[in-house]
Amino acid sequence: MDTHKSKGFTVWFTGLSGSGKTTVARVVCDKLRERGIMNVEVLDGDLVRTNLSKGLGFSKEDRDTNIKRIAFVCHLLTRNGVPNIAAAISPYREIRDYARGEIKHFIEVYVKCPLEVLIDRDVKGLYKKAIAGEIPHFTGISDPYEEPLNPEVMIETDKEKPEESADKILRKLEALGYIPRVTRAESRLSPEEEEKIKKRLRDLGYIE
Amino acid sequence: MDTHKSKGFTVWFTGLSGSGKTTVARVVCDKLRERGIMNVEVLDGDLVRTNLSKGLGFSKEDRDTNIKRIAFVCHLLTRNGVPNIAAAISPYREIRDYARGEIKHFIEVYVKCPLEVLIDRDVKGLYKKAIAGEIPHFTGISDPYEEPLNPEVMIETDKEKPEESADKILRKLEALGYIPRVTRAESRLSPEEEEKIKKRLRDLGYIE
Repeated sequence: MDTHKSKGFTVWFTGLSGSGKTTVARVVCDKLRERGIMNVEVLDGDLVRTNLSKGLGFSKEDRDTNIKRIAFVCHLLTRNGVPNIAAAISPYREIRDYARGEIKHFIEVYVKCPLEVLIDRDVKGLYKKAIAGEIPHFTGISDPYEEPLNPEVMIETDKEKPEESADKILRKLEALGYIPRVTRAESRLSPEEEEKIKKRLRDLGYIE
Repeated sequence: MDTHKSKGFTVWFTGLSGSGKTTVARVVCDKLRERGIMNVEVLDGDLVRTNLSKGLGFSKEDRDTNIKRIAFVCHLLTRNGVPNIAAAISPYREIRDYARGEIKHFIEVYVKCPLEVLIDRDVKGLYKKAIAGEIPHFTGISDPYEEPLNPEVMIETDKEKPEESADKILRKLEALGYIPRVTRAESRLSPEEEEKIKKRLRDLGYIE
C-alpha cells in the first residue's frame, strides 16, 4: 500500500458534551492513517478554545463565533487537500449550515447519545454541576441542542463501540469518494509499511 | 512546466501600517502561482481580524492573541505542505519569535519603510487620525514597533517596486530550498499551461 494524498474534506462532529465526539474523531484519524492518509488534522473543542477562541464564553453569540472560526480553518485545510475533523458541540443548526456552506466537502456526523446516559456517565462531573445550576449555558441542560435534520452519518455512542462508529464514518467517506475503498487484507500493514508511515508522521511533527 | 506541490512554509511579513505588506504578499502569491505553486494561502490583517479575531482590540495583549491565532493557522497549513503568507503588523519581537517557534518553516520578511514616508503617503488617512490622537494604540505613533533583528529578508518599499521586493523573497525561498529554482524562460507560460493553471485555481475555489 502506498501512502497517498487524499482529497480534502471536513468531518464535522456535532453532539452533546461527553457524547464521544473527540474519542470517535481520534479513532477515525487513526484509521485514516492506517490507510496511508497521514495528514489528518483534528480540531476538537479544547484545542480550538485554546488556540482560536480564548476569552469566548458559551452564549449563543460566542458559540457562533467559535464555530465560524473553526469553519474558517476547516475551509482552508479542505480547499488545500488536507482532511480534517472538527469535534465541537456546535448545538445550533443554523451555524452548522453556515459551516456546510463555507466548506467545500463537508460531512456532518451526528454523535447521538441520550441525555440520561450522559448524565449517568458524567465522566467529567459537568452534568452534575450543570443540573445544580453551577454551569450556565450548558448544552442539553440549560442551553438548547438542535439535532441535525439530515446528517451524512449518525452514530449512536450508547450502542456502538468507538471502533464501530468510526467504521460507519469511513464507509461514508468511501461512498462519497473522499477516500479509496480498501479490502480487509489491504488494510493490514507490513512492518516496513508501518515504519514508513511512522517516519512520515515524525517528519510531519505528529509524533516524536 | 508541471504544476507541482511545493513544501509547506510560512512567509511572515511584519511592518508598519501602509508599508505594503499585503501588496507585496499578493505579488509573491501571484508569482508562486505562475510557477505552478497554486495552493498558496494569504492571511492578511483584515482577513484575520474578520475571521479569527473579531472583537479583539489593539492592546499588547490583544495583538499577541491575534498573532498567536494566525500562527496556529499558519502552523497547520505549513505542516500539511500548504505554502502560506501572513501579513499582519505584528509589532512585537517576542510574539514573532513565538510564531517562529511554532511554525516549522518560517521566513520572516521585514517590510521596511520610513515613518515619514508613510505619514506622507497616508493612503487610508489613518496616520493623520493617529497623530491627532483619534486612534489609540497606533503602531509607530502611539504604540511601539520592534524591528526584526535578523529577518530572513528585508524589503524596502520606499525604494523598491512591489515586483522587486517579491523577487527578493522568491530568491530567498529558492535559496532555502522551499521552491524550485526556475530560469527566466521556464517561468513563462504557454496558453495551454495558463488554462491548466486557471482550471486548477477554479477547482480550488480561488477564482470563479
